[in-house]
Amino acid sequence: MSELLVVGSVAFDTIHNHLGSHARVLGGSAVYASLAASKLAPVRLVGVVGKDFPREAVDMLRNAGIDTAGLEVANGETFHWEGRYSKDLTSRETIQTDLNVFADFEPKIPAAFRNSPYVMLGNIAPQLQLHVLDQMESPELVIADTMNLWIDTALDALKELLKRVDILVINEEEARQLTGYHHPLAVAEALRTMGPETVIVKRGEYGALLFLEEDIFCAPAYPLKNVADPTGAGDSFAGGFLGYLAENHHSDLRQAVICGSSTASFCVQDVGVGALVELSREHLDKRIHDFRELTCF
Amino acid sequence: MSELLVVGSVAFDTIHNHLGSHARVLGGSAVYASLAASKLAPVRLVGVVGKDFPREAVDMLRNAGIDTAGLEVANGETFHWEGRYSKDLTSRETIQTDLNVFADFEPKIPAAFRNSPYVMLGNIAPQLQLHVLDQMESPELVIADTMNLWIDTALDALKELLKRVDILVINEEEARQLTGYHHPLAVAEALRTMGPETVIVKRGEYGALLFLEEDIFCAPAYPLKNVADPTGAGDSFAGGFLGYLAENHHSDLRQAVICGSSTASFCVQDVGVGALVELSREHLDKRIHDFRELTCF
Repeated sequence: MSELLVVGSVAFDTIHNHLGSHARVLGGSAVYASLAASKLAPVRLVGVVGKDFPREAVDMLRNAGIDTAGLEVANGETFHWEGRYSKDLTSRETIQTDLNVFADFEPKIPAAFRNSPYVMLGNIAPQLQLHVLDQMESPELVIADTMNLWIDTALDALKELLKRVDILVINEEEARQLTGYHHPLAVAEALRTMGPETVIVKRGEYGALLFLEEDIFCAPAYPLKNVADPTGAGDSFAGGFLGYLAENHHSDLRQAVICGSSTASFCVQDVGVGALVELSREHLDKRIHDFRELTCF
Repeated sequence: MSELLVVGSVAFDTIHNHLGSHARVLGGSAVYASLAASKLAPVRLVGVVGKDFPREAVDMLRNAGIDTAGLEVANGETFHWEGRYSKDLTSRETIQTDLNVFADFEPKIPAAFRNSPYVMLGNIAPQLQLHVLDQMESPELVIADTMNLWIDTALDALKELLKRVDILVINEEEARQLTGYHHPLAVAEALRTMGPETVIVKRGEYGALLFLEEDIFCAPAYPLKNVADPTGAGDSFAGGFLGYLAENHHSDLRQAVICGSSTASFCVQDVGVGALVELSREHLDKRIHDFRELTCF
């Protein structure tokens, strides 16, 4: 089992959905990914919060076994995002984004974290993702997420980043935007030409595709009767995926994808991080087993 | 191996897509489904064509082992549909529909066909699908497809039909429209309450879901670099699916879904029925094997 560094956003999310309005619940890519990965491997978190960030939230992360020595407390307020989901939860609109202390975030990797063999660059500006890599000693495996905002506003830095990333995890729509292709095989080939040896295309309720050289693996999403909140599903997926690789010394990418999908399927069953916090290894293993039932023939 | 009756449309399609314009290619739900099923079991086709229907097309169907004794030749012209696909092939608009002889179609099942143990009711008006069932002796397995047009215009007949159907095969969007639910589990539960013991939800480029009691099977679509024409993909899926069941005495629904998905993956690689006509059992079996590679973990 190897240490896993997670860098990303730490946020309060105000979420309006079919269940009502949920004010200032703990969120952010680094929080979802860290909690997910913490089920499988020791996690080191790097992010920034404001003076308003409650002690209880830090305690919760520490109780999950996450090393918060890289959680910087800056003058000001914590990043806040407010959004509204469509009734079927397949789309959302941003109502307000208060970057607050996140606006000036410059990830500083504590000396004790720089030898982390596994690095997850959560969805932040590619310039900052590059800045993280510059501080690392020689990670075995670097995985990165990105989003349409950076494709639109920081394409050069993103392309620079992709040359230094082993595994890119990206939404299907954003992968299409970045490559100009529609069909998954063409998308993946174009992305792999940009740098990453392995590409994972996230398809929301339709699961995920893994591309490694000529090998393709197609994983479904776990069918759920009630989805409470898709916020953080992609980050939970990435956290569960990389957590599995850190636990198993980078072997079996397919199992890792299923582990990520399982983790994400728990995440969406509650608003915010509640279901992830409560998730036991036993339940996670049970769901991985259920995925086999779902796909075998 | 048991006989399989296929009832549906026989048409000429004029298709405009990224490859150009393709005038009056052979199509229709019964043609796609029959050709697909004929790779696996003896097929009996029931449909209507006009006086303009070429001898060569009938010969092609017969050469595929399809019994065309139920192919009625009526006074007038064959059903013609013209449509244009979006660049990414995920949507299409109808430019023109000339029902022609199809407008007065009343499926007459030849006496020799009435004992068919497997019946596929392709996408025609539910009143006509019911009329077919009234003429059958005692089929072992009835599978039906439907579409939004009938949900909008013939809901009562459709509900009547569903009570007499063993397996419903339906597009995800149309399943959502029919049930008012979004998530697959809720959709399937609502559909099964309407009659069919088994429900298959077709998700286009995302594959298909099979629901049988508490059992759920999730099959991907085969990732293809170049899709030529999705016309008939759903009918090929249904034909390959039911063909497999007819060949294997209604055992192993999961394998049957993979067989349907494999058949459909060949269908879309060519405009019209070309790829289906050429498809060998050897290539079909190879693709079923490739599906295992695609999903195992």
